[in-house]
Amino acid sequence: MKKYKILLIIADGLGDRQVKSLDNKTPLEVADKPNIKELLKSSLVGLMDPIGPGIVAGSDTSHMAIFGVDPHRYYRGRGALEALGTGAYLTEGDIAFRGNFATVDENMNVTDRRAGRKIDEGEQLVNELNQKIGEIDGVKVTFYKATEHRVAVVLSGKDLSDKISDTDPHEVGRKIKESIPLDNSISARRTAEIVNNLTKRIYDVLSTSIYNKNRIERGEPPANIILLRGASKFVELPKLYNYTGLKGGAVSATALIKGVCKAIGMDVFTPKGATGGIDTNYDAKADKVIELLKDDKYDFVFLHVKATDAASHDGKTEEKVKAIEKMDYIIGKILNNVGREIVIMFTGDHATPVELKEHSGDPVPVLLYVPDNIIPDNVSDFNEREARKGSLKIIGLDVMNLLLNYSNRATKYGA
Amino acid sequence: MKKYKILLIIADGLGDRQVKSLDNKTPLEVADKPNIKELLKSSLVGLMDPIGPGIVAGSDTSHMAIFGVDPHRYYRGRGALEALGTGAYLTEGDIAFRGNFATVDENMNVTDRRAGRKIDEGEQLVNELNQKIGEIDGVKVTFYKATEHRVAVVLSGKDLSDKISDTDPHEVGRKIKESIPLDNSISARRTAEIVNNLTKRIYDVLSTSIYNKNRIERGEPPANIILLRGASKFVELPKLYNYTGLKGGAVSATALIKGVCKAIGMDVFTPKGATGGIDTNYDAKADKVIELLKDDKYDFVFLHVKATDAASHDGKTEEKVKAIEKMDYIIGKILNNVGREIVIMFTGDHATPVELKEHSGDPVPVLLYVPDNIIPDNVSDFNEREARKGSLKIIGLDVMNLLLNYSNRATKYGA
Repeated sequence: MKKYKILLIIADGLGDRQVKSLDNKTPLEVADKPNIKELLKSSLVGLMDPIGPGIVAGSDTSHMAIFGVDPHRYYRGRGALEALGTGAYLTEGDIAFRGNFATVDENMNVTDRRAGRKIDEGEQLVNELNQKIGEIDGVKVTFYKATEHRVAVVLSGKDLSDKISDTDPHEVGRKIKESIPLDNSISARRTAEIVNNLTKRIYDVLSTSIYNKNRIERGEPPANIILLRGASKFVELPKLYNYTGLKGGAVSATALIKGVCKAIGMDVFTPKGATGGIDTNYDAKADKVIELLKDDKYDFVFLHVKATDAASHDGKTEEKVKAIEKMDYIIGKILNNVGREIVIMFTGDHATPVELKEHSGDPVPVLLYVPDNIIPDNVSDFNEREARKGSLKIIGLDVMNLLLNYSNRATKYGA
Repeated sequence: MKKYKILLIIADGLGDRQVKSLDNKTPLEVADKPNIKELLKSSLVGLMDPIGPGIVAGSDTSHMAIFGVDPHRYYRGRGALEALGTGAYLTEGDIAFRGNFATVDENMNVTDRRAGRKIDEGEQLVNELNQKIGEIDGVKVTFYKATEHRVAVVLSGKDLSDKISDTDPHEVGRKIKESIPLDNSISARRTAEIVNNLTKRIYDVLSTSIYNKNRIERGEPPANIILLRGASKFVELPKLYNYTGLKGGAVSATALIKGVCKAIGMDVFTPKGATGGIDTNYDAKADKVIELLKDDKYDFVFLHVKATDAASHDGKTEEKVKAIEKMDYIIGKILNNVGREIVIMFTGDHATPVELKEHSGDPVPVLLYVPDNIIPDNVSDFNEREARKGSLKIIGLDVMNLLLNYSNRATKYGA
């Protein structure tokens, strides 16, 4: 039995409903997809509930499930995963926050939740914070720069808790909040106190930073505070290699997804021009996937494209159709370069219907191309409507087992 | 996103098999259902296993599952739920029994398990028992009148057990039984003792009651004992509002179902003329549902109709067909009064094939009407045969997630 390499492609928010402006068709139905259609000749098709029927999945919980890690057991919030995705180094028990560089006045009232959003000195400010703060009350504090005005902040030490409230007031014009413990534990009380002390230290460092003086001189709002939200404890996830034997490489530009991939031990790549938006560089992503598939180091390659979801949240139907056509283009390019002797799954991590502009709990169409002589499902196209006629009716946690089976890499359960 | 109100309609025992007298069609296939057919234009259709494939569900366990409360974790027998449904007030740890007013001779041999079934003085006898008994061995005892010859009996106190046997011999001509402990616990031994003492007290009170003297004078069998069965400990159930955010109102005439609804915190209504039988007042039920759907107080309305199950247990095929047509009539009346901007699920809690006259573990057809632009399932009618062509293949525990998703009321799991 030949062991095939595996390519898993997730178009974020791919699933949709009938769209009025598309004559009651879905973006997948309307999109021109010659390469995907070609795969149907040797594919299983069907529907996937990422978590379970009707459950509205986030991208993080869904990706965990698809990678075979039960989110009900392991998910502890977005913060730690996103911090990992921005390059943070985390160990079990660390508390990670999502943060914004923001602007406060002398009374600690927030005047701009993003400090003008464009912060060219982000790297320098983060370095300054790391040098001048270092630790608080015996707890190590590390800052990581993320995209635009965003940062990740990590507390490392013993007996910390993520059961504490945000300092982010989530509204302009309001005073920065005290973090308070959300349960009666000593660790939550202590962590909240550390966070409040940290906020004062951040203000001290940033409000006196030369970079902010320069910003003020240029008429820009100073990035003189970091608003913290979504405290989340890092829990070590099972490692993909340990539970599947697969050496995995991931291509993604989205911090949250990169974090999930890193957490399960995959190597993560973000090629130049990959943005996590509808303007992403599809060729750069395809090229990186081709490179990984040709590399002996990897037998499982994961490609994540956010553009479909970004278009959906903005209600941009045409952009979503275009993004799907670009996915088809990517698939064609990959096939042309590595051939058809690979197992490919193409699906979404959840539906984001363009008319809803939000994630929904509708099932997502899934395609599983197998080079071997499987009985293909008798469907005429790959979309939400045709997928109902297919034989797959799965949940996210089934995906890795299916991929291992059809790539001839599964180990027998029993004798 | 508009948040829709939700209407869940359960026709008890709806599912069926091919019926010889119906030319190998099912009652659902034969019934005229113009309003339900109309809903199919924007509905998902399929099959539901209330608990799991092949598991023969009771109405109580099935309703729990459908409401999202796992019966494997929470179900502790019918007694406590039915007592709740008759108006009993229960707190965690109480032991509830189902009871019959019955007739015993002077040797405590049962001569009529229902004391003639027609007991006009039921209310007075229950009052007399409550006044004269009150408590036994420090345990509070409360009697509640149910329909016909039925009563609920509740023991409230510490360290009580439901691991005890019935006093009901379940056969005429046999002596009333001693309750015995069913495990080695002190609490079971103590509770059995209390129940045996209680039985003697009940006999003392009832056999000397003026109401029974009058019955004997009129030639009626005295209701001089209560046969107890199905001891069941009350376990607090999760509250619907807490796990779904839904404010629920229920319309039912069946004590057991009313009990389940009350146990999860719903307001429960039994309109005049609603009987729990095939003679129920369908209009009164429809009117109450319409009233609740128009009331801001409720965003989830549940309608239970027992007639389909009653007809099935009696093997009355034509009555079942008629009851289904009445369900269609109800749905039409509701739609005419509240419009189509609601999410509707119509299904059964289990199959009760009329030729079997018993519950069966066959899957039940389910219809989910969504006003939004979903892709409707391509089925020509709503019945057991066509439902196999639909896209839904769910278990009872999926129902609330689906309803929350399609009413745009779900909260995202993850980010």
